[in-house]
Amino acid sequence: MMAEHTVKAFDEDITRLRGLIAEMGGLAELSIQQSMEALVSGDEVLAAEVVARDKKLDAIETEVDAMAIQMLALRSPMADDLREIIAALKIGGVLERVGDYAKNIAKRVKRIEGRSHFEPLTLIPAMADLAGEMVHDVLTAYAARDAELARDVILRDDKVDAFYDSIFRNLVSYMMENPATISSAAHLLFVARNLERIGDHATNVAEMVHFAAVGTYPNDIDR
Amino acid sequence: MMAEHTVKAFDEDITRLRGLIAEMGGLAELSIQQSMEALVSGDEVLAAEVVARDKKLDAIETEVDAMAIQMLALRSPMADDLREIIAALKIGGVLERVGDYAKNIAKRVKRIEGRSHFEPLTLIPAMADLAGEMVHDVLTAYAARDAELARDVILRDDKVDAFYDSIFRNLVSYMMENPATISSAAHLLFVARNLERIGDHATNVAEMVHFAAVGTYPNDIDR
Repeated sequence: MMAEHTVKAFDEDITRLRGLIAEMGGLAELSIQQSMEALVSGDEVLAAEVVARDKKLDAIETEVDAMAIQMLALRSPMADDLREIIAALKIGGVLERVGDYAKNIAKRVKRIEGRSHFEPLTLIPAMADLAGEMVHDVLTAYAARDAELARDVILRDDKVDAFYDSIFRNLVSYMMENPATISSAAHLLFVARNLERIGDHATNVAEMVHFAAVGTYPNDIDR
Repeated sequence: MMAEHTVKAFDEDITRLRGLIAEMGGLAELSIQQSMEALVSGDEVLAAEVVARDKKLDAIETEVDAMAIQMLALRSPMADDLREIIAALKIGGVLERVGDYAKNIAKRVKRIEGRSHFEPLTLIPAMADLAGEMVHDVLTAYAARDAELARDVILRDDKVDAFYDSIFRNLVSYMMENPATISSAAHLLFVARNLERIGDHATNVAEMVHFAAVGTYPNDIDR
């Protein structure tokens, strides 16, 4: 059994680890939101901010990894504590990728021409709101160990997928009617795809949170 | 200090863990290769095999995770052993994603019409060969703790990216000239993008392998 001061040090480490994950989540959400503002307005300065923020996310992920490894090495945690640390490692990895997707969207901002003509430029931000909320809520569920909220996030992924299908069809029709816009429209296809992937990643984290909270995956949800 | 039989048990566990990673690597490579055969020929039965194999990859990843957690819990490994287990967890996650990309390619097989007309249908398999070799070689580097081979894999990612840029431009031109093919060409854009991502993932693993072997990331490579 660990001595009391060791338990306290471990709890402090867990709190710090959870703080780093929350920080990553906040930055990833901000990047999703700003990548959309930049996409719609064509604001390349804002897009560059999103691209720059990705390095910060990479750095925090490295910190999460290092801290998790140190906790595993120094404290040899058991059962729930061990699962908690492994979950933090995985969630850190997912948030780093969400940041990558937002960076990828931001990098496409200057490639889009004639943005006032694209109907998907109203659909895509609505899709991004949904995906961004999934990221936000899954981190709330993680912080509160809330299996119900995690379940709710998983259910929302179908809506994001439906948005994606609709935007895909819309962009393909638009390309057929306006071949001169094909290059811009192809970049928007990738933007929509990146958002769809963000929804998938939030869903994966939600499954981990559900598992950590109640010990089962929500198998009754048809996915 | 661990007793001799404990050390032996640990070594056996590590060998088993490495075996699971090698098995995942072999399946992921096969899926990349068969997804290309199916894409070029339109063979939907082969495409369905690739899709089905993804569940096997998911199952082995779950086994890797469970085994790694058990090793961390039972053996409280230190330093190199700890890093080795964390690396296996991460590499397992990457290979699961490589399988997802191959599955995604296979699912697009039936969406491609008029495949004999697409020049990218010769470029894309060449790109897949490069990406598949990167996956193969990075796992060889992992098994042999070979930093030089890992470095070589990292250097090859530029070629995969160049392929992607060329295929992107080629497909956009083709869409402009043949608006009726836009939907098929859009799916091919995603196929190329999936291969580009596989190259990125192989590169990330190569960086981990390099780090595990010599303690530094190959920073002199401009990425």
